Amino acid sequence: MRLEVLQDLVRKSGLDAYLITRPSSIYYFTRVLTFEGKLALVVPSKGEASLLVRSLEFELAKVQSEGCQLIKVQLGRNFVEEISKLLSRFKKVGFDQLRAGTYLSLSGTGVHLEERPQLVWNLRRAKSEEELACMREAIRIATEGLRKASEAIEAGVRECDVAAEAEAVMRRLGSQAHSFETIVASGPHAAYPHAICSMRELRPGDLVIVDVGATYQGYRSDITRTFVVKEPTEKQVELLDAVTRAQREAIRAARCGVKASDLDKVARSRLAQLGFDEYFVHGLGHGIGLDVHEPPRLSPESRDVLRNGDVVTIEPAIYVPGYGGVRIEDMVLITKERAEVLTQFSDRSA
Amino acid sequence: MRLEVLQDLVRKSGLDAYLITRPSSIYYFTRVLTFEGKLALVVPSKGEASLLVRSLEFELAKVQSEGCQLIKVQLGRNFVEEISKLLSRFKKVGFDQLRAGTYLSLSGTGVHLEERPQLVWNLRRAKSEEELACMREAIRIATEGLRKASEAIEAGVRECDVAAEAEAVMRRLGSQAHSFETIVASGPHAAYPHAICSMRELRPGDLVIVDVGATYQGYRSDITRTFVVKEPTEKQVELLDAVTRAQREAIRAARCGVKASDLDKVARSRLAQLGFDEYFVHGLGHGIGLDVHEPPRLSPESRDVLRNGDVVTIEPAIYVPGYGGVRIEDMVLITKERAEVLTQFSDRSA
Repeated sequence: MRLEVLQDLVRKSGLDAYLITRPSSIYYFTRVLTFEGKLALVVPSKGEASLLVRSLEFELAKVQSEGCQLIKVQLGRNFVEEISKLLSRFKKVGFDQLRAGTYLSLSGTGVHLEERPQLVWNLRRAKSEEELACMREAIRIATEGLRKASEAIEAGVRECDVAAEAEAVMRRLGSQAHSFETIVASGPHAAYPHAICSMRELRPGDLVIVDVGATYQGYRSDITRTFVVKEPTEKQVELLDAVTRAQREAIRAARCGVKASDLDKVARSRLAQLGFDEYFVHGLGHGIGLDVHEPPRLSPESRDVLRNGDVVTIEPAIYVPGYGGVRIEDMVLITKERAEVLTQFSDRSA
Repeated sequence: MRLEVLQDLVRKSGLDAYLITRPSSIYYFTRVLTFEGKLALVVPSKGEASLLVRSLEFELAKVQSEGCQLIKVQLGRNFVEEISKLLSRFKKVGFDQLRAGTYLSLSGTGVHLEERPQLVWNLRRAKSEEELACMREAIRIATEGLRKASEAIEAGVRECDVAAEAEAVMRRLGSQAHSFETIVASGPHAAYPHAICSMRELRPGDLVIVDVGATYQGYRSDITRTFVVKEPTEKQVELLDAVTRAQREAIRAARCGVKASDLDKVARSRLAQLGFDEYFVHGLGHGIGLDVHEPPRLSPESRDVLRNGDVVTIEPAIYVPGYGGVRIEDMVLITKERAEVLTQFSDRSA
């Protein structure tokens, strides 16, 4: 069904075929789920799609795959050469993503290749009810992880202990994979948006950013809260309130048809008015689904426009070098009228 | 120091500069460690190297970086355009890896780009004593994870519970990241080399493949053992013995100068002689270091030759569709005389 829709787009785009190598997109079209695998899906404008699978993943693909023929790449065969063989009968082929080396090898055989990632993203961005159900389950699991983290946070406990608790709960609830590297960033570490969990002990007065995600049926969740060890200071309350307010206003402004860069500006302007915009060093958010980061991108440089069915994160933040940081991140579903907040978690955080 | 060695190679290769985008290689040369970041390092044949960093990672890079100048890419700026500016004064530039789209954008500005990943891998393959110390610590952590998993395995416990126990221990011991997705594959799932942890309950008589890894100072470990719930059957003992024997012979044959494909053949021939080679559906192993999979590749199609200082996994396996599987994986250090086994774990496994 999804493959048929794609084939229709391939024909309308004047392409003879489309090559997909991104594992999450291959899962989207064929139901073959692998977090480590190397696969290639060739979708001709007419006729059956072919999924190239190494012998390593073949037995699993045989059980999972739907709507395509499987071609086994035997051990000792060059995977790119096998793709090339499959493409040889086409003149003009679109693709989602390739490494430069693979692109050059395939182009060298005479086929005309065009990078057309939007063809797939246009489909994947519009989440179906079935997909939303999976994402809600991934959110439920991550929420329990966050709850466990919030209970574990106290002076003397280390960042890695908090992460261990959150991750273990998510695993036991059936998270298939870590959606991304868990972040537990305390004290001065919280000033780094992509901090790595360390063995630092939490201290009274620390801000602690906890950013967790789970994976259910391939679908991802991504939630962040910022906690304070013991009582927050006036300054901390000010930071927490500023981020909360910027987030609330962005969520209120989000709906189908709004430019992603304008939405970013809603939050950024509020933080600017409060004197904190220089500390908001990343975009407002990102699309999420089978990938934890996918289109649309919510940032000053984005050219995306929000659509019905997009699921995006809204995550304004303040990072003060040497001091700490605050980030609050929720996932919202974009509809015609408004943004529906999918994540629900409140505790000691703002 | 490492940057100077690279510059020397750049000059000798007739290049004016070298572009690195792989995060682990950027860490190798600059000490900037990020598991999610987008960075680009430009190393000219003479003069200082430049690291392009988004505002998001800038504060962390400022603290961590060594031996290069930092260039901050402000929010709203296009990252590829910033790379392009840096490259504009060079004619011939080598690179480690690029996406096709980025390659085409950069090439469009007139610079001649050549894919030369070996330039970096030739350096990274030779592990120093300092690097080996980090890998030994990553191994120590993963070994504790494996021990915890082995203790958790019993009838009625689920795959995800076993994974949760192993992962929590590794986190608490300071693993910075999951080296890769943990595998706990039981019963028929063990027939899939890249099985995803599920909520399946272990049953008496199951084979259970547990494949775990930890990360310490960026360096990875990767160890697999196969357990049996309760007493193994004769058939299981036969499978376990066959894989153990194939592994032992491969390890004995491994040393500097041996072709990777020949080493693969040592294990594969033994399994063939025992009647199991059709069930060994992947290569014998892979290099490991800052990446969990890096050169050299140990497989029938590999053209690599083992070198002094390589750290590789040796992981023969038997996967019987519908029944289960056995994999045993250790990490070894290649030296002139022999392969030193770095991983030590024995329990109920073969």
